[in-house]
Amino acid sequence: MLMQTHEARLDALRKELARRGLDGFVVPISDEHVSEYVGAYAQRMAWLSGFGGSAGTVAVLKDRAAIFVDGRYTIQVREQVDGRLFEYKSVPQDSIGGWLAENAGEGARIGYDPWLHTSGWVRTVSAALEAEGATLVPVDSNPVDAVWDDQPAPSAAAAFVQEDRLTGRSSAEKRAELAEWLKAGKLDAAVVSALDSIAWLLNIRGSDVDRTPVALSFVIAHADGTAELFIAPEKVTPELVQHLGNAVRIRPRLEFEAALAQLGGKRVAVDPNFGVAAIFQALEAAGAHPVARQDPTILAKAVKNPVEQQGQRDSQARDGAAVARFLRWLEETAPQGGETELSAAARLRAFREETGLLRDLSFDTISAAGPHAAIPHYRVDEESNLPIAPGSIYLVDSGGQYPDGTTDITRTVWVGPGQPSAEQKDRFTRVLKGHIALALQTFPQGTSGAQLDTLARQFLWQAGVDYAHGTGHGVGSFLAVHEGPQRIAKPRGGQAGTDQELMAGMILSNEPGYYKQGEYGIRIENLVLVESRKIAGQEGEWLGFETLTLVPIDATLVDRSLLSEAEIAWWNAYHARVLEVLGPQLQGDDLAWVESACKPL
Amino acid sequence: MLMQTHEARLDALRKELARRGLDGFVVPISDEHVSEYVGAYAQRMAWLSGFGGSAGTVAVLKDRAAIFVDGRYTIQVREQVDGRLFEYKSVPQDSIGGWLAENAGEGARIGYDPWLHTSGWVRTVSAALEAEGATLVPVDSNPVDAVWDDQPAPSAAAAFVQEDRLTGRSSAEKRAELAEWLKAGKLDAAVVSALDSIAWLLNIRGSDVDRTPVALSFVIAHADGTAELFIAPEKVTPELVQHLGNAVRIRPRLEFEAALAQLGGKRVAVDPNFGVAAIFQALEAAGAHPVARQDPTILAKAVKNPVEQQGQRDSQARDGAAVARFLRWLEETAPQGGETELSAAARLRAFREETGLLRDLSFDTISAAGPHAAIPHYRVDEESNLPIAPGSIYLVDSGGQYPDGTTDITRTVWVGPGQPSAEQKDRFTRVLKGHIALALQTFPQGTSGAQLDTLARQFLWQAGVDYAHGTGHGVGSFLAVHEGPQRIAKPRGGQAGTDQELMAGMILSNEPGYYKQGEYGIRIENLVLVESRKIAGQEGEWLGFETLTLVPIDATLVDRSLLSEAEIAWWNAYHARVLEVLGPQLQGDDLAWVESACKPL
Repeated sequence: MLMQTHEARLDALRKELARRGLDGFVVPISDEHVSEYVGAYAQRMAWLSGFGGSAGTVAVLKDRAAIFVDGRYTIQVREQVDGRLFEYKSVPQDSIGGWLAENAGEGARIGYDPWLHTSGWVRTVSAALEAEGATLVPVDSNPVDAVWDDQPAPSAAAAFVQEDRLTGRSSAEKRAELAEWLKAGKLDAAVVSALDSIAWLLNIRGSDVDRTPVALSFVIAHADGTAELFIAPEKVTPELVQHLGNAVRIRPRLEFEAALAQLGGKRVAVDPNFGVAAIFQALEAAGAHPVARQDPTILAKAVKNPVEQQGQRDSQARDGAAVARFLRWLEETAPQGGETELSAAARLRAFREETGLLRDLSFDTISAAGPHAAIPHYRVDEESNLPIAPGSIYLVDSGGQYPDGTTDITRTVWVGPGQPSAEQKDRFTRVLKGHIALALQTFPQGTSGAQLDTLARQFLWQAGVDYAHGTGHGVGSFLAVHEGPQRIAKPRGGQAGTDQELMAGMILSNEPGYYKQGEYGIRIENLVLVESRKIAGQEGEWLGFETLTLVPIDATLVDRSLLSEAEIAWWNAYHARVLEVLGPQLQGDDLAWVESACKPL
Repeated sequence: MLMQTHEARLDALRKELARRGLDGFVVPISDEHVSEYVGAYAQRMAWLSGFGGSAGTVAVLKDRAAIFVDGRYTIQVREQVDGRLFEYKSVPQDSIGGWLAENAGEGARIGYDPWLHTSGWVRTVSAALEAEGATLVPVDSNPVDAVWDDQPAPSAAAAFVQEDRLTGRSSAEKRAELAEWLKAGKLDAAVVSALDSIAWLLNIRGSDVDRTPVALSFVIAHADGTAELFIAPEKVTPELVQHLGNAVRIRPRLEFEAALAQLGGKRVAVDPNFGVAAIFQALEAAGAHPVARQDPTILAKAVKNPVEQQGQRDSQARDGAAVARFLRWLEETAPQGGETELSAAARLRAFREETGLLRDLSFDTISAAGPHAAIPHYRVDEESNLPIAPGSIYLVDSGGQYPDGTTDITRTVWVGPGQPSAEQKDRFTRVLKGHIALALQTFPQGTSGAQLDTLARQFLWQAGVDYAHGTGHGVGSFLAVHEGPQRIAKPRGGQAGTDQELMAGMILSNEPGYYKQGEYGIRIENLVLVESRKIAGQEGEWLGFETLTLVPIDATLVDRSLLSEAEIAWWNAYHARVLEVLGPQLQGDDLAWVESACKPL
């Protein structure tokens, strides 16, 4: 049934391509803003292929098609996508351009939607096709939309104001700083197309994308401090109009392309990582000069001001109490059996909702029992849902969106009865030691996250094991739970941002882990704030981390004999602080549980 | 007197430039092989300016001149070079191209010797000049040579054979491997111009460059496994001819340029970091296709085979005994006063010469008393020579060239009487802890030196201090003491090679330090060998380090209370091994001293 449907969809798309004189078409998971998570209206690849992962691309030719996914989705793509319709391809080993060039044939015209690809992608794939005598051509409208009958409309949710008391700086101040940057670079304007950058710059939020409180829109910011906001009229409330004031001109989103065409002769900054090819093409067609620059809001957004820092602390205190109540509930309930990954995730959400301030989760909760915990990016659904078995490890990675901050925490706990194995305790303790090493390290100004990454891995490496993900990512303020440009990761991991120096005010996660395939997984994640440090005898400027996340870590999984005195001191000081902050928010059995969980090791 | 001389030299050069119709000229410290250390014949910049450092460039115009040096030489350049003749400029803040462009004037023709600069340098400086309407033009012969009356001739020392029993692989094998690489890359030939690469490829050595046993020459290697060696005829002995055999055609060095001109139509690999601009220009003029590729011998040379590894262990055992005898002599003699940096360096050399196998030092000994130890690259001479004061820290960084290996060791010792200060012990112990952390770390295949660098700094960083140099460099086998491509260093230090993954068989130094300007300096340096490791429960392939250098570390400078049990265990095991290897080579008081120095901590 499903297979027939995807076959029919593929047929319909091929007929539409033929009608338009195209020999093929590329369907990525992407939107007009190069977002990490895309709205339902933009899930064209999932509709066409049935693939449910968060990253991938389908390439369709007249007589064959292929789906390109990365190593995370090798198994999933085979479960969800019909191999008779789509060949399975792995990136980065297989390339879309290479496959198209090999199979399209000389003279072929392969279409792409310039609103869904970066210029870099267009250059690479064009070059590959041209080498074989084929051409990559932009389409005016997406042919998938033409054959997708029940395509959801883009969200019509209203945008709303993020008050200055929460942002710490007015939009006018931020725009003035951006204007200074434009003038210093002899630029006339900047296109801001990343949705969280727009939200930060204008101090607005929205409800158009799951898990990230942003509003679908574009901005053109000018060197005089004014800006144009291109947004669907139904999203605009009187409060929004009043908040934005005279210096921000609100225009229909559909006028964005025409507005670009009016920038002829001007030097316009566009971030090639976030500005899609259509923006560059529209500017060039108009005789404007697009200048590739990193989105000027990115670094400013990453460095949290004191108000945002305090908001993060407040949201962490609130979120920590909710998570602690969940862990107490789990410790009491799960050993009797009957709980599942889904029921636990629902319970955790309920505790967060009881705070009265939860606006959304910050990402889909990773509620992972037993072997599922060994899949770092596991997402539970009705089909995958496992019971939480008594006598096993349970991992929960989750976060909340609050008006004053975005949280992200992972705890790995032993579900009784019984005791974890010596190997499980060894691995958990090595992960903990790495987490503590990073938390305690001070470092000179100018240090990048790549330089700190190994500190979190060193104890696992001594045991001949590692984890195949980064150690830390940036986090927004009531914005994206993954926010650049800073990262703590291997320098050669192919991930952007590891070269960015860490600066006081940046928020990062500290989340080493260990994953034994088919058996269990471990991750300990707190958010940390980069702060200036004074050290007696210091030479130069020094930085360190303040740990923001305050929730007990499960001592049952710790092998105390592997810890140094300094590590035990960290544990005890951390848990004393957890009790100090969470205690006043809790009563009765919840309070007693936290008091017990925060006892010195 | 000196100043008049340099003024006269500068005048003579300017007259020569005028005769050639040039408005300026660039004089770097460089040779035709982009060598780290250059022969006396190529010390044109020192002759012209009086500067004695190892890196720098002079730019001469009609009415002004400037000398460009890096931060290491800020003080030295002002002591040695007349500021009335040469403006002092600092790289990278000041650029040669920028200064020339600013001062040369429109239409100016600035000369450069294409045998002394890379193509990258030529491109950068040409672009800067062209933006101001000036031109960078290659000269056929170096105008400095025309006015340098007593310029030394290039060394005429004979080249000699490095026997297969020391290299572990024949030149024919190495050339066959290079030929395979050429064929795989659809290349016809490779120009090998780095002197240590030539020495490695042909299993020959020479005496043309101080401290590095190489012979001035060029190689063109062909895809059929044959090669042409361009070398001055007086360097060629019958033994060399016999060793090289029929597949290596020996040609006069002066024919090299003409030979390049015969490669028309061929695809020729040249390493842009080591092949000077003249090579690219000659190939292009001949209608050949120069293809920029990393010198194919570099990685093969860096990974030592079992014979080279054993040679390194043998030379370390021998060198370690000599250094230990020196340290015993120093401990007995220096506290009475009367020794100097020069006398100690001479004594150390004498101990090494008594091994009967020393061919040369591997670099100029850094013999640094008191505040001089705070200058990481300090070189002692008659003028700078300080007494080794009783009651102070003395640092000695030195190495030997032996037929079976190149050594490089730093020891920092307390010269009695009295005791080091608490701060000195704290800093020494933090350096030691970093050294041990690196020595003990295991890591997965694919790890780069940049990923390990912070392990050596972490304990200094906790105290708010750092060191401004890399942690480790590669070392050759009876070749260059600084050998690429691997390094252990900060990833953003602007030094090449930190991205190179470490591979079993590579040799590196492990040399963290601490420098208190004007007071004292500390560095602890051992060489280590990357080796494959088996770890119970390991996932994937793992590597670790074997410490090669075996000489006692001064326990007087250690604050034992700062060491963990694991660090003390490393110290004790290391010194047990030192005693095991050095003991059988020593007698009497030397043996007694090593036995005492190797006692458990």
